[in-house]
Amino acid sequence: MSPVAKDMTLAVLFDLYGEVLSPRQREIFSGYYNDDCSLSELSADFGITRQGVLQTIQTAEHKLREWDEKLGFYAILMNTRRLAETIEEQAQTLPQDETAKTIIALAKEIKTL
Amino acid sequence: MSPVAKDMTLAVLFDLYGEVLSPRQREIFSGYYNDDCSLSELSADFGITRQGVLQTIQTAEHKLREWDEKLGFYAILMNTRRLAETIEEQAQTLPQDETAKTIIALAKEIKTL
Repeated sequence: MSPVAKDMTLAVLFDLYGEVLSPRQREIFSGYYNDDCSLSELSADFGITRQGVLQTIQTAEHKLREWDEKLGFYAILMNTRRLAETIEEQAQTLPQDETAKTIIALAKEIKTL
Repeated sequence: MSPVAKDMTLAVLFDLYGEVLSPRQREIFSGYYNDDCSLSELSADFGITRQGVLQTIQTAEHKLREWDEKLGFYAILMNTRRLAETIEEQAQTLPQDETAKTIIALAKEIKTL
């Protein structure tokens, strides 16, 4: 197992708040979480020690969690998706006329926002 | 007209990002935008000049806009509400059985998130 346990919540937090990380933090964090690079690979790519990579990832994680504690968009996003999912499920039980299809399409669109 | 034009977008930006402001910026900004206090009232309440109040509001505005330029939740929120509104309108054209009522209630819930 990797020294930094990959928590998929963090990939979402990165989508939400990644833009407020420094460019370097963003690149290293994204390499690790999105591109599945190892610490050693990132160490070679960025010319810093594995320990340096690890610290950058941990600092970025800490910042992402801290912003979400303040702003709370993770919970809002998850609730919105859950509600849109339920709308979609309900609309699928209706006769599939134009209205039902429109509702399903709109609910799917909300889920991707 | 007030020296700071009240732009209702800013009230929404404050709801979204207010927690990243300092407590003092938050109180003054909220007094101005949410409680509709005048600069003179805020000046008296906080024991600073009207100019100081104005500068605090402008600094807060700038921070809120800067966060939204990076994170873009204002547009996401508006899109989500618009889609949920359309779902609600579509569902209101359906025979009002349990399914239609559930969809309307869920869409209303999304609009309040």
